[in-house]
Amino acid sequence: MNLPGKVKIVEVGVRDGLQNETSKVSAADRIALVDRLSDCGLPAIEVGSFVSTRSVPQMADTDTVFAGIQRHPGVSYPVLVPNLQGLRHAVDAGVKDIAFFASASESFSQRNINCSIEQSLVRLADIAAEALPNGLRIRGYVSCVAGCPYEGEVPVSRVVDVAVRLAEFGCFEISLGDTIGVGTPGQVQRIIEGVAGQLSRQQLAVHFHDTYGQALANILVALQEGVSVVDSSVAGLGGCPYAPGATGNVATEDVLYMLQGLGVETGVNLKAVIEAGHAICKQLGRINGSKVARALGSAQAACPGMT
Amino acid sequence: MNLPGKVKIVEVGVRDGLQNETSKVSAADRIALVDRLSDCGLPAIEVGSFVSTRSVPQMADTDTVFAGIQRHPGVSYPVLVPNLQGLRHAVDAGVKDIAFFASASESFSQRNINCSIEQSLVRLADIAAEALPNGLRIRGYVSCVAGCPYEGEVPVSRVVDVAVRLAEFGCFEISLGDTIGVGTPGQVQRIIEGVAGQLSRQQLAVHFHDTYGQALANILVALQEGVSVVDSSVAGLGGCPYAPGATGNVATEDVLYMLQGLGVETGVNLKAVIEAGHAICKQLGRINGSKVARALGSAQAACPGMT
Repeated sequence: MNLPGKVKIVEVGVRDGLQNETSKVSAADRIALVDRLSDCGLPAIEVGSFVSTRSVPQMADTDTVFAGIQRHPGVSYPVLVPNLQGLRHAVDAGVKDIAFFASASESFSQRNINCSIEQSLVRLADIAAEALPNGLRIRGYVSCVAGCPYEGEVPVSRVVDVAVRLAEFGCFEISLGDTIGVGTPGQVQRIIEGVAGQLSRQQLAVHFHDTYGQALANILVALQEGVSVVDSSVAGLGGCPYAPGATGNVATEDVLYMLQGLGVETGVNLKAVIEAGHAICKQLGRINGSKVARALGSAQAACPGMT
Repeated sequence: MNLPGKVKIVEVGVRDGLQNETSKVSAADRIALVDRLSDCGLPAIEVGSFVSTRSVPQMADTDTVFAGIQRHPGVSYPVLVPNLQGLRHAVDAGVKDIAFFASASESFSQRNINCSIEQSLVRLADIAAEALPNGLRIRGYVSCVAGCPYEGEVPVSRVVDVAVRLAEFGCFEISLGDTIGVGTPGQVQRIIEGVAGQLSRQQLAVHFHDTYGQALANILVALQEGVSVVDSSVAGLGGCPYAPGATGNVATEDVLYMLQGLGVETGVNLKAVIEAGHAICKQLGRINGSKVARALGSAQAACPGMT
């Protein structure tokens, strides 16, 4: 099937997941979750964001979380920073990896972060100009790559433009995010081919939300297209999967199960991730958003006449 | 991506779906559901089974259902028959399309239908010998193609053997069923390539349960392998999707959404299927198992800092 032999999973549950949950998780519990995820063998775990506590209360005390976790050698622990203030906060906290994002959709940029794409890129250039000399590595997210809640489908050319800018700013990795989960495999193929016309496929990551159930099929196509970095969220954290408007990230467990079946190496212990996912879901009083976690948590039933 | 231009959806919700729901749906409500699905433009709708009412009470009165539905020209309305008695019942009811199944796993056959694979094949040969001269068309299911709850992974060679036998009996279509939903895309590719070594790809269908969330990725690979018939179930009927041991079929809505995005023609009206799915779920007091149906039933929210 022409897949990469090894895939790097970037665990985003503690950040992109928890920031979209209604219940707030304490710093101590986020530390425990990150440590548990580190023990699973995950190579990259987003720890939180240095954002306004007013707009994202779930990410408060990210400095406490970062200071409290056990950093495993060779594992990266990025934090999201939206501006210079966030960057300085991150540097003070001793962070080595940051992430930032720009939207491929003008309307989403305006409504989500109150500025144009161009204005946000200028801001990111400023962050990069200060971060890189300080020895930080930067991961760039492009959001709304497959569609926007206000504009509908987003042209591939706009995704390419934003991705190229982020790369020019010095991002070592560009994660293409289908923020609202509307993309389908053919579209994902066109997006990756578009971006890969300008950037190396080795530099690309994919970030899917499973809102329309398309995430695993989209990841499969991305792998077939030579992408070998996949963002996912333990237990599909991020928006209750059964509430209206569910926007959960694809579940790490479901991605790992598929990759394991495909013989693709990740270095991650699926069983341990399932246990970590069950634990945080119990704490949140939430149904586990991973189908694999739910299936393996129960005996397989065989019903009469079942095909 | 080398996909078929047109895919035939075989709607199995009224049979494989409802037979695995705990609530029993009356014949009148099943008639209404089939009629609604016919109006969606679905080309094949399984109506029920002529099985023992004791073992599958949900399928009681299938003759009443079959007599009551409005049969659209060009649409097939198969019923499942497990034995000669069932076939005769079907013939009396005026059925033109039947389906039967054999397992690729010996243990599953023993525990699910209380006989060996070979014994079940002899029984199916008898059904075929009586059905074909009566002008009936037969669809053959192979169950447990990717794995068995008792034996684990099932060798491709056994799937091929059973599929070939069903074709020899005169089945016009062979549906390869991952009954417990454990398969992953590489395995699906190997199964289809194995079976396609003996049978035409045009004769094959795929039947996935989404227990491990792999169904759409598996369908995508099946399409890439030249399969153009896909079984699915409105609203993912068949085992509550959030109960332990969930064994729901892949949701028709989610398959249609992916195919629409891929530019593959189905002739089916997605919006109408979503409405039919919401109606039956409301009746069953059940959460809709289709992510697409859930997502389109609510406004898209954009949260601060969401990537």
